[in-house]
Amino acid sequence: MADERFSGNPLRDPTDRRLPRIAGPCVLVIFGVTGDLARKKLMPAVYDLANRGLLPPGFGLVGFARREWADEDFASRVHEAVRQYARTPFREEVWRQLCEGIRFVQGNLDEESSYGELSATIDELDQLRGTNGNHAFYLSIPPGLFETVIRNLNRSGLSATDRGGWRRVVIEKPFGHNLESAKDLNQVLSTAFPSKSVFRIDHYLGKETVQNLLALRFANEMFEPVWNNHYVDHVQITMAEDIGVGGRASYYDGIGAARDVIQNHLLQLLALTAMDEPISFDATNLRREKQKVLSAVLTPKRPDLHAARGRYAAGWTGGRHVVGYVEEEGFKPTSTTETFAALRLDIDSRRWAGVPFYLRAGKRLPRRVTEIALGFRKAPHLPFTATDTLDLGRNALVMRIQPDEGVTLRFGAKVPGSQMEIRDVNMDFGYGDSFTESSPEAYERLLLDALNGDGTLFTRGDEVEASWQFISPIHEAWADSRVAPFLYPAGTWGPEASKELLATEHRMWRNP
Amino acid sequence: MADERFSGNPLRDPTDRRLPRIAGPCVLVIFGVTGDLARKKLMPAVYDLANRGLLPPGFGLVGFARREWADEDFASRVHEAVRQYARTPFREEVWRQLCEGIRFVQGNLDEESSYGELSATIDELDQLRGTNGNHAFYLSIPPGLFETVIRNLNRSGLSATDRGGWRRVVIEKPFGHNLESAKDLNQVLSTAFPSKSVFRIDHYLGKETVQNLLALRFANEMFEPVWNNHYVDHVQITMAEDIGVGGRASYYDGIGAARDVIQNHLLQLLALTAMDEPISFDATNLRREKQKVLSAVLTPKRPDLHAARGRYAAGWTGGRHVVGYVEEEGFKPTSTTETFAALRLDIDSRRWAGVPFYLRAGKRLPRRVTEIALGFRKAPHLPFTATDTLDLGRNALVMRIQPDEGVTLRFGAKVPGSQMEIRDVNMDFGYGDSFTESSPEAYERLLLDALNGDGTLFTRGDEVEASWQFISPIHEAWADSRVAPFLYPAGTWGPEASKELLATEHRMWRNP
Repeated sequence: MADERFSGNPLRDPTDRRLPRIAGPCVLVIFGVTGDLARKKLMPAVYDLANRGLLPPGFGLVGFARREWADEDFASRVHEAVRQYARTPFREEVWRQLCEGIRFVQGNLDEESSYGELSATIDELDQLRGTNGNHAFYLSIPPGLFETVIRNLNRSGLSATDRGGWRRVVIEKPFGHNLESAKDLNQVLSTAFPSKSVFRIDHYLGKETVQNLLALRFANEMFEPVWNNHYVDHVQITMAEDIGVGGRASYYDGIGAARDVIQNHLLQLLALTAMDEPISFDATNLRREKQKVLSAVLTPKRPDLHAARGRYAAGWTGGRHVVGYVEEEGFKPTSTTETFAALRLDIDSRRWAGVPFYLRAGKRLPRRVTEIALGFRKAPHLPFTATDTLDLGRNALVMRIQPDEGVTLRFGAKVPGSQMEIRDVNMDFGYGDSFTESSPEAYERLLLDALNGDGTLFTRGDEVEASWQFISPIHEAWADSRVAPFLYPAGTWGPEASKELLATEHRMWRNP
Repeated sequence: MADERFSGNPLRDPTDRRLPRIAGPCVLVIFGVTGDLARKKLMPAVYDLANRGLLPPGFGLVGFARREWADEDFASRVHEAVRQYARTPFREEVWRQLCEGIRFVQGNLDEESSYGELSATIDELDQLRGTNGNHAFYLSIPPGLFETVIRNLNRSGLSATDRGGWRRVVIEKPFGHNLESAKDLNQVLSTAFPSKSVFRIDHYLGKETVQNLLALRFANEMFEPVWNNHYVDHVQITMAEDIGVGGRASYYDGIGAARDVIQNHLLQLLALTAMDEPISFDATNLRREKQKVLSAVLTPKRPDLHAARGRYAAGWTGGRHVVGYVEEEGFKPTSTTETFAALRLDIDSRRWAGVPFYLRAGKRLPRRVTEIALGFRKAPHLPFTATDTLDLGRNALVMRIQPDEGVTLRFGAKVPGSQMEIRDVNMDFGYGDSFTESSPEAYERLLLDALNGDGTLFTRGDEVEASWQFISPIHEAWADSRVAPFLYPAGTWGPEASKELLATEHRMWRNP
């Protein structure tokens, strides 16, 4: 019965020969179930997977939090979140099926007895739902509590697999706040879970267009031959947000742009852009290549020249006036936290020697956009006259991650007319124009992969350490320096120092 | 006065730093002025050039034909043609200025006395308009009469430059109907005009998108590295017409698709696609490279396997029923003329060894389209599973010459969804979308170049001979064979034999 209800799924295209794997029977435990992420992303993703027929009939969802809720209270919270945030249409029969496996455990993360109750609830679901002792623990909690929960999972025997089945733990960034703390976290994780059972989410890797970067590079013949320092002049990776820190200045303080997004998302994008071709796309091979290239990223010897940080001042964005960072609620006067960071780095490999990679991320920039742009060298010889090519820039291959996902190729074309004037034009591929299929949410993809035990799109512990190895010295230099972050008006592309980073090397940021 | 009228031209963008060269004072003589080409293309092009301020005040236009016209009769014919076919808006003051220099000479192409009258008229214009003894002769007449006119221009002293100024001759294809006759024509031309004064028009070279092919290849850094046999699997050049021969079967008979368009247009497109980078875009350097690559084209040793010809049968096109070639008016029952030809050829060079070039041209095909498509090899290694790439074809770079001019890049992208499925998508650049400038007609460009003495976009005599060297043996093989051209229904992509040409090598024609 249950099987039928899930498999007769109208959203599933029966002609699709390449169906995603359906997860095996299991229980998903979410710690921190009352948080925003759980409500807006995780619960809707669970429902969407069920609706797409990708969850097994034998599936249980356990929420863990301090609230005094009964199972029904939690179920109605999930219901609410699904109705509000799910990507796929609401279907009563899918919900009913899912609902039967929903449980809530009231407890404290640091109380051992709570884990006993959790264990009992999971056991009950194992019996009732046939989940076979397969348990995934999703830690949707502040990173300061990771260690507590992992130790308690270990002590209570919840991480042990001696009774059969699998145990997995899913955590989200930040994975430490510097190299040392990242190593500590990896150490704690390893006491309870073998490396293959740890799933570190970088939700950027769950994005369609990030995965498309892999398809673009390796499924095609014509890009890879020019994907190296013979033809590429430099690479720019931008992650711009138009919003400010809002009410979260107290959270953001002490983190800043470099830790918040460069150390993880941008360095992951860099890894996928710069890595060599993996033997295959399984977890071992892909992550080996990422780790290899990340370990070849050189720490800037002169952070004063190769890193720039800024902090937004009051200004105009989206047609309205906004306050500066120091006026945001929760801001501490002693804070030196940056809301904008730009870095220049080198990769010490045959493929990339001599090609600078410029990374920048910031809040209160002119618009929300994430993109990777390869700027090519100029053609070595132009058989045209100099005036013909006056308006000719560099070829660029731009992978637009968000919004308006797609690929743009910038190249020189002849301007119509009785002379050979050449000007830059764009060739465009829009993800949305070319496919009728809608993109699953990053969390849908990543949850499914975690339940399937496929670690391909997750970050390995040594990748995290390699990233910190590179970022930490910059933070230290910033901390040592007596200079506060430069101010930039909200709604602009960051401080002058960011432009200088490229200008001294006769280059310019694209302003996408 | 005159100067002012021409230079105060509202169609000219004063911010354009790259203005085309304005022709110097000269007389343009058109033989065969009553023909279609003169009326629909040449006269409107002369006016458009004047209107764009690209003709000098000292300009004279002389028509030569058998009709008993006065200057005014001819002028009113030109007026009519301009009003009907000119690209740019009609402006009375431009017309008046042009009109003052219009003359008509009534005469016979084979009568020496007519050339005396022509000479007198030109002399008068030289005096009146200050055209300085610079004379261009445009032979818009059947190729059988080229020799007669050239000999008479020679005998009457019209081709001689001993009194100063320049003399140029402009002719249009066909330049002979086989290697021998092409050599004869070159020989006759050389008796009257030095090689630099002969302008052989291939109007395809005047097309914007053909010139854009040069910009695309050589103004950019990212295409040339893959423009060779390491990455390109094969090249397809297609020139399809949807129309039939109409009432011109008697003209078309004995010519056929290979002579009509492959020997000239398609081999010119091939030359621009396959040639090495010229040192510069002047006439000497560009034509040297074209000639070099054309001389490296190998004649198919087995025309039975590497050439296919066809003839359209009755069928449907554009929603209506059309007759077959043998039912066209003027068709001779003994004719073996082909309306479709497809060839496979090799280029004997380091760059292209092992890369077949497939050429096809035909009438009554499904639509009117001219394009050059580079089909790339498949990626040498796919780190994906086999089913992921089930729908993945070859990368292709397609240069669309007409209609809908532009460039398309076909490549594999990830299909949205929770699995790595890769499918072909297109990235597009539309000439019309990217530029507000309107394209001058090919004849505008070519006439201006001829008046300026710039032979870059004209075919050199040795290029013509190299083309015939390749095409003639195929014609001979066809003439020797007892097999008539294969029939193909109107509105289809030619005979099966054309598909076979590629199928035996495990390839397929793109159907654009």
